[in-house]
Amino acid sequence: MHFGDQLAEQVQLKKSAVCVGLDPRWPSLPAAIRGTIDVKNPVAVAAATQCYCQEVIDAVAAKAAIIKPQSAFFEQLGPLGMQVLAAIIVHARKRGLLVLLDGKRGDIGSTAEGYANAYLGVDSPWQCDALTVNPYLGDDTLEPFVKAAQSQDAGVFVLVKTSNPGSGFLQDAAVAGGQTIYQRVAELVEKQSMATLGSSNYGSVGAVVGATYPEQLQELRGMMPHAWILIPGYGAQGGTAADVAHGFDSRGLGAIVNSSRGIIFAYTLPQYAQLAWQDAVSAATTDMAHQLNEACG
Amino acid sequence: MHFGDQLAEQVQLKKSAVCVGLDPRWPSLPAAIRGTIDVKNPVAVAAATQCYCQEVIDAVAAKAAIIKPQSAFFEQLGPLGMQVLAAIIVHARKRGLLVLLDGKRGDIGSTAEGYANAYLGVDSPWQCDALTVNPYLGDDTLEPFVKAAQSQDAGVFVLVKTSNPGSGFLQDAAVAGGQTIYQRVAELVEKQSMATLGSSNYGSVGAVVGATYPEQLQELRGMMPHAWILIPGYGAQGGTAADVAHGFDSRGLGAIVNSSRGIIFAYTLPQYAQLAWQDAVSAATTDMAHQLNEACG
Repeated sequence: MHFGDQLAEQVQLKKSAVCVGLDPRWPSLPAAIRGTIDVKNPVAVAAATQCYCQEVIDAVAAKAAIIKPQSAFFEQLGPLGMQVLAAIIVHARKRGLLVLLDGKRGDIGSTAEGYANAYLGVDSPWQCDALTVNPYLGDDTLEPFVKAAQSQDAGVFVLVKTSNPGSGFLQDAAVAGGQTIYQRVAELVEKQSMATLGSSNYGSVGAVVGATYPEQLQELRGMMPHAWILIPGYGAQGGTAADVAHGFDSRGLGAIVNSSRGIIFAYTLPQYAQLAWQDAVSAATTDMAHQLNEACG
Repeated sequence: MHFGDQLAEQVQLKKSAVCVGLDPRWPSLPAAIRGTIDVKNPVAVAAATQCYCQEVIDAVAAKAAIIKPQSAFFEQLGPLGMQVLAAIIVHARKRGLLVLLDGKRGDIGSTAEGYANAYLGVDSPWQCDALTVNPYLGDDTLEPFVKAAQSQDAGVFVLVKTSNPGSGFLQDAAVAGGQTIYQRVAELVEKQSMATLGSSNYGSVGAVVGATYPEQLQELRGMMPHAWILIPGYGAQGGTAADVAHGFDSRGLGAIVNSSRGIIFAYTLPQYAQLAWQDAVSAATTDMAHQLNEACG
């Protein structure tokens, strides 16, 4: 089924635009998971990380629209971490969750095809539903990913305006005609959304726009009426529900809002401290979905 | 030892600025390696790919300054491919080769740190000498990689002007003051080269500039006098020895020139067709080193 439509279905079914970011940083994992494992024992660390991710997935499966494993934290565990990544993707899909791999991949020609084949489509060994991609190398380098969206029902999220303090370095640069770089990328994304349009009136090629830049988010929602927007930067990075409200359309669609630390490490927050860690993760997902629904309702 | 100095040492020792790109596309591997293996048997494909990469490494170890595995082609083989990647990195280092992983990674804050920790430094599970990185997310996102260059003797190559036809989409955009985006990135790279300067008068933070844009290569050599330049696009993509000559300084240093298909699949070229495939790979490396030395001598 068309990715953009599947995402709309998930958001409506679960009444939740929450994207749970799976960033399994070892020192932040629950004490019950880390136990007495020596951080220098890679097999034990990988096994415990897999256990943790699967329990997080179980806790959020009914309440999150999508999950977003952050590739870096699995790559950091070496080849064993990549086995864990594959295993938790299978687990999430069995639980009915869409999986967006946050890999921010990008390369040229047949190498970009390699990344598209690696992560997207029925013959892919990783079997992700969607992938984040980086546009710096040029519009031609996004084509294999758009093709996967068209022929393999895959989803693609192109970096447009990222949530970090230094994102303006290139993205805000004003080019000829007064347009900024992020606007130039947004124009391309809207074009590709239209080229992959579904019955939800959204395409399968979307954009990444940080919650920490609410004015740009509002502007970009207007510029890309057919593009799903993945909004990182909520919570720990400073973005509020009022900030991200700009990303939604009048139906409450069009945006998914990511929280990583605020959900997967919710057991470290005072308001959830008395709960079992899995219950804290679950409660934080519920609470975030409510906050988004109230702000966008 | 400082990465930029190690690279200078390798180029001088081997009289070769050749970077061998390891892009193990299954259909292009020698018939002797592919044998009767079913492409749908991932274990057999991974094992044969590892065997092929190790034989390529053995064939070029004495003649290449550095090798550059392309991460996409290992990721495409799934978790098994990532085991192969780890194994061939160990193999290359045992053969005395520097290893530059072409992953074009980039992310924000602690995620960028995750990538730096994953691939660079003494505690990294992958143990690469250097990594290619993407600057789109901003100058702040390069800091963890620069830190790894400073404290872990790692190397970093930042995408500046890539070799593909569409690289101008963002990279050539003229920003305020008439500067292009690639020039803005080049200024940052030169600053970071200076911040990581070695006794070779080159830093450990370098740039990627395509052979297919010789004018820009000449300009960028001038703008980044202390940065190693990784030059892709030689051979199969159309770049010639005369084109890449612009990337070198008067000592014959400052650039490494990548060839992937032209070396690792040299057995498919008429001039090497009568050789055993390993000898074809070896001869192509020798020939390319000579071509570069003649053009830059």
